[in-house]
Amino acid sequence: MPHFVYEVNHFGLDNDSLLLGETIFHNANGYLGVRANFEEGYPEGYKTVRGTYINGFYDFSEMKQAEKLYGLVEEKQTMLNVADTQGIRLFLGDEEFSMFGGELLDYSRTLDMAKGTTTRRVRWRSPQGKEAEITIRRMASFTRLSIFTIEYRVTLLNCSAKLRFVSSHRGDVMNYHDPDDPRVAAESFQHLLVRKVEAERGSSFITSQTAKSGLFVCSGVRHNLAGTITTGEAFAVSEVTLDAEEGMPVRLVKYTALADSIRHTDYRQVCAAELERAAAVPIEQLYAEQEAYLTGCWEKCSLDIHGDDDLNSALTYNIYQLIQSVTKDAYGNIAAKGLSGEGYEGHYFWDTEMYIQPFFVLTMPEFCKNLLSMRYKTLDMARENAAIMGCKRGALFPWRTIMGRECSGHYPSGTAQVHINGDIAYAVIAYYLATGDFEFIASMGAELIFEICRHWIDIGNYYKGKFHINGVTGPDEYTCIVNNNYFTNALAKYNLYWAVKIYDLLKQHGRLEPLERKPGISAAEVAEFARASEAMYLPYDEELGINPQDDSFLQKRAWDFAGTPKEHHPLLLHYHPLHLYRHQVCKQADTVMAHFILEDYQSRETIRRSFEYYEKITTHDSSLSRCIFSIVASRLGYKEKACEYFGDSAKLDLFNTHNNTKDGIHTANMGGNYMAIVYGFAGLRLKESGLYLAPVLPDQWTGYEFTLSYRGSAMKVAVDSRACRITLAHGAAQELYLYGEKHTLASEMVVPLQG
Amino acid sequence: MPHFVYEVNHFGLDNDSLLLGETIFHNANGYLGVRANFEEGYPEGYKTVRGTYINGFYDFSEMKQAEKLYGLVEEKQTMLNVADTQGIRLFLGDEEFSMFGGELLDYSRTLDMAKGTTTRRVRWRSPQGKEAEITIRRMASFTRLSIFTIEYRVTLLNCSAKLRFVSSHRGDVMNYHDPDDPRVAAESFQHLLVRKVEAERGSSFITSQTAKSGLFVCSGVRHNLAGTITTGEAFAVSEVTLDAEEGMPVRLVKYTALADSIRHTDYRQVCAAELERAAAVPIEQLYAEQEAYLTGCWEKCSLDIHGDDDLNSALTYNIYQLIQSVTKDAYGNIAAKGLSGEGYEGHYFWDTEMYIQPFFVLTMPEFCKNLLSMRYKTLDMARENAAIMGCKRGALFPWRTIMGRECSGHYPSGTAQVHINGDIAYAVIAYYLATGDFEFIASMGAELIFEICRHWIDIGNYYKGKFHINGVTGPDEYTCIVNNNYFTNALAKYNLYWAVKIYDLLKQHGRLEPLERKPGISAAEVAEFARASEAMYLPYDEELGINPQDDSFLQKRAWDFAGTPKEHHPLLLHYHPLHLYRHQVCKQADTVMAHFILEDYQSRETIRRSFEYYEKITTHDSSLSRCIFSIVASRLGYKEKACEYFGDSAKLDLFNTHNNTKDGIHTANMGGNYMAIVYGFAGLRLKESGLYLAPVLPDQWTGYEFTLSYRGSAMKVAVDSRACRITLAHGAAQELYLYGEKHTLASEMVVPLQG
Repeated sequence: MPHFVYEVNHFGLDNDSLLLGETIFHNANGYLGVRANFEEGYPEGYKTVRGTYINGFYDFSEMKQAEKLYGLVEEKQTMLNVADTQGIRLFLGDEEFSMFGGELLDYSRTLDMAKGTTTRRVRWRSPQGKEAEITIRRMASFTRLSIFTIEYRVTLLNCSAKLRFVSSHRGDVMNYHDPDDPRVAAESFQHLLVRKVEAERGSSFITSQTAKSGLFVCSGVRHNLAGTITTGEAFAVSEVTLDAEEGMPVRLVKYTALADSIRHTDYRQVCAAELERAAAVPIEQLYAEQEAYLTGCWEKCSLDIHGDDDLNSALTYNIYQLIQSVTKDAYGNIAAKGLSGEGYEGHYFWDTEMYIQPFFVLTMPEFCKNLLSMRYKTLDMARENAAIMGCKRGALFPWRTIMGRECSGHYPSGTAQVHINGDIAYAVIAYYLATGDFEFIASMGAELIFEICRHWIDIGNYYKGKFHINGVTGPDEYTCIVNNNYFTNALAKYNLYWAVKIYDLLKQHGRLEPLERKPGISAAEVAEFARASEAMYLPYDEELGINPQDDSFLQKRAWDFAGTPKEHHPLLLHYHPLHLYRHQVCKQADTVMAHFILEDYQSRETIRRSFEYYEKITTHDSSLSRCIFSIVASRLGYKEKACEYFGDSAKLDLFNTHNNTKDGIHTANMGGNYMAIVYGFAGLRLKESGLYLAPVLPDQWTGYEFTLSYRGSAMKVAVDSRACRITLAHGAAQELYLYGEKHTLASEMVVPLQG
Repeated sequence: MPHFVYEVNHFGLDNDSLLLGETIFHNANGYLGVRANFEEGYPEGYKTVRGTYINGFYDFSEMKQAEKLYGLVEEKQTMLNVADTQGIRLFLGDEEFSMFGGELLDYSRTLDMAKGTTTRRVRWRSPQGKEAEITIRRMASFTRLSIFTIEYRVTLLNCSAKLRFVSSHRGDVMNYHDPDDPRVAAESFQHLLVRKVEAERGSSFITSQTAKSGLFVCSGVRHNLAGTITTGEAFAVSEVTLDAEEGMPVRLVKYTALADSIRHTDYRQVCAAELERAAAVPIEQLYAEQEAYLTGCWEKCSLDIHGDDDLNSALTYNIYQLIQSVTKDAYGNIAAKGLSGEGYEGHYFWDTEMYIQPFFVLTMPEFCKNLLSMRYKTLDMARENAAIMGCKRGALFPWRTIMGRECSGHYPSGTAQVHINGDIAYAVIAYYLATGDFEFIASMGAELIFEICRHWIDIGNYYKGKFHINGVTGPDEYTCIVNNNYFTNALAKYNLYWAVKIYDLLKQHGRLEPLERKPGISAAEVAEFARASEAMYLPYDEELGINPQDDSFLQKRAWDFAGTPKEHHPLLLHYHPLHLYRHQVCKQADTVMAHFILEDYQSRETIRRSFEYYEKITTHDSSLSRCIFSIVASRLGYKEKACEYFGDSAKLDLFNTHNNTKDGIHTANMGGNYMAIVYGFAGLRLKESGLYLAPVLPDQWTGYEFTLSYRGSAMKVAVDSRACRITLAHGAAQELYLYGEKHTLASEMVVPLQG
């Protein structure tokens, strides 16, 4: 059984722990996210990242380039903190409740991942001796995406008193900034301008507009108890006063609704209607809906490790965060930090396609469709971006973005990572392989892939009969602007191959015509794709029998690992980019990653030798690296190594092992951990020829099981020390390859464990 | 005879012409430079770059990087506008003189390059009908480097009147800025803070301090006529009133002295003393000194073209600007725009070593010694820079700088141009070859070269027996961060070869010991230099028989020149760097330049084939390119092509052909034009084996002549359609190679023209 409840007694009250807790216990539903700030705040002098975010809601900021050069990005997007509706101050008589005054008799924080709520429980004695039990439960509703709730329950234990709640709703919020930390924004300004504050039939509404992008957001707040509302220029405050008797619980429920102008022209009305609709039913009904929703999710995606409780908790936590983070519509995506914080300014990266979709595609592929649709919606901006980059045709998706325009400040490790295009096309294909959703291909996927393939043709060229792609950066950011990056070329080859395939499919199904009209696709162009795919140059070194990361990688200096002091890691914080570029040193899996996603392009021996070559020179300074090494180690039969690489990676956020979880969760790492188990230990692959599994069991575990969705059928895979049992939970029978052998799964099959 | 007088009647009074005139007629002496602003200013609404600069006087400015990465430069230096002592307003009775009011009866601007002065002559009729002849002569004294003078002469032609001069001295000056032009600074702030304004015995002194670098500058002003001085917080104004009679000239002489804390701890006293010393003698004596100084210069460096008057004027102008621009001490250098404007923020580039020193080394090699000494003075900062770049030993000079620290904002086309190191070492060697100044080598040159060679060893590595240098950018800024740039590797090979040579020389002369103690040089290290030089990898393509610009240059896409509209040139203003990097397209001579400076490294055939290959793909978007192509064309016997490349390049500034001379002169281009004649048409080379000449005569000319200094002897080379005549003007007999044959020049030799 997964561990659905994560509870910590006496979670730290030092500033670092509080910041960490804000992330760990944040509530999100894929549309909105609220950091787990204390309603009443912290004492003066404490840092806090007090934020509420909407997926895809942004403003533009100036990004100055030290030297102006044509096409360099000078404007970025920033995910905005949209309002602060968390504030609730509680007065017991004339004493204000605070975790930092009086006496904390008991205190715990809980995340319940089956119920989808977080709870802070406090037993508190005031300086004057009043004792109270305070329970604060928060929820971002999965069934009503606009809604965030706080249920604030107070029971006086040794007295009766007048209770007063001062519940605030503020529009004058800013993003967090810290000039000393390169990972969060260095500066901020008032991105959000309050346009209107209204109090209306017990609710307050604040409508704000972004300074540069011209977007609107409306936040609405109401309570279950009647009170008086005061409004100011940028805030509204509700005061609720009541007499509480000893032992009789008192309960304030605060509903927040958010609506934005990206999704709704009538965002003000939507906000009001959703707020009213939520407040009209007992909070218990919202909780029940939430639990039902999550039960449905967990059925589709649970992953259970037997024999390592901490790991099991961590993995459940990771999956829950992916569910919290993923957009539920095509207006958002999955930010590098989800909706849990402002790290990387809320930007979307390749993380989505290569580290998170591999999870969703096997569990809740409908979310993949949203994610890919979001890319499709921004295709015109990707076309513009390609034009800025000098291309005459095709589209180039941005390396980092919110609304679709490139936000990379340092193009050698940003815009130059054109593999983002390959990643998106790869994800389209993976989605198609997992679901067989031809309709999506016909309506969006084909156009995405054709435009991406046009870009490959546009930037590449033939040299001595081979198709070369020059001047790009692969996933390894310690080696920038190179020629024929193996990962990029292999993906391009795959994309181009599939473009031809899809063209043929569309033709067969008589669906080519609309595409022929829209961006125009001709048989001649498709022939060009086929030729380039066939002729794609994939660097191979005869002497070492490996795929070099790029054309000149092997001739570079070796990195002096022995002479690098421990405190000089991660290298990017201690060495100039040019120094890194001059060396054979990798930040993360690059060729090794290509060997995972496109394993049929090379012999097992080449993959083995390459793995052994790159593992010596990879620092794993990126949290996206070890999981990939683990997967390839699994594939190569290096079970112990696979376990080593998997290591503590899954515990990164829950146990804050990188010490920066305060900035937000690491969503790609979370997906990567899932991958290391399902694609790694269980050896799952989605190929044109079908679904492949080849499970092994790490020695430290007694077993593991997971569910997966494949072409409309649901399967359960359970591995123990002797056998792998696969059960068809529902849906049609499916063919699959187990340890390379083809089977038909009609109801259940049990195969002895190999390897 | 060179054309020493450049005079323009009715030089335009539109804003563009005025800005151009500010550059064209600026006065400089290598220490200070004053733009040719009208003393009385322009009417409101006109732009003006009103500036006075000191070579090497700077402040720091913040340079924000769009993304923070280790070691990226975040602070640059800016050459400062130090004071405004140009202001003189003239009143004739109650009417103020202005070029833009009343009636201009006559008007001319003159630069006299033999006398070293500029003159504005005006015959003016006031609105009330007063006629006056006004002659304003300005000079930056070569014999008193602190001194700038304005002689303001007024003769009333048809009346007598009270004349009033209001002569200002302002400290509250700022640098010019224009947010719309990437070539000048986008922003500025009050870099210079006035600390003291004093009026003392007829002089005014303003002492200012830079905001960040903490430097001081003192400007002093006095006049030949007694007046009343008023001082304000940041200025002093002298008023002189006198009665002028019809036909009787009246003359105000305004002396400015500048002194700075970089050169003098007692800068205030130095300023006062120099001011007094200048004002103590009649201005005519200063003029006479100036003319004598220049006579001496012209004797050493004149270059005379017969048969093309415009060209002859332009070349004389160019040489004069080099004399004006070159520092006269080791505290400055030669900025990209000399002391004539603020373009490129007054930074020093490789232009000095590779485009300007080739002129001085043959004419006034003592200036080269200053320039190289300035590099030597900043060697410690170059060591720090190398350390920032990850090197364990050696020094890396900055790509652009004033005081010695790197100012490159975009490292791919800045800091990555480590050939700057090779250029400096090359210039040390050239200086030694031209002068035989072993003392300089022993005291500074050797250490420079050893530290530079250590850097080559530190960044390079052996691969398959060859020494590689990876991750660098050559001169061609359209191809960045490459491996084994031919130009860089060839220079490194040459540097390393000379390091060994110099070590041996020092040893022979018993001068090794101090160096052995200072940065430490061992026989083992020198053996390492020798080995790397020997094993240096110089890319060569067997199929094409050319030197590829770098390892992967030839495999890149061809640039679609036919499909590039004319208005898309220069390419850097219309294409993203990555797009340029992906193509075989060169901004400027790179391999071709290597084939000029190190012609013995390749066969004539390789050089020829390379020239023909690169000329098809070079856009000459840099003003440093055509002159090099012209030189190599000359060497290959392509006389017509050499003339074509030489073309109008020499007229760039005097005729403002690039339309940006307002920002300042192009000093490197000026040196390059000299080179195209002396190293190009006359085929001059400085080699270890001696001095080489191989003159040809362009068909358009009837002849040309120039003087040169070689190992203490002065020679005159005169070429006409039949013969080359070389005369020993003074000094010992010298050996030289003429058309490859060795001769001894004892007094004169005449050889028939070849080729």
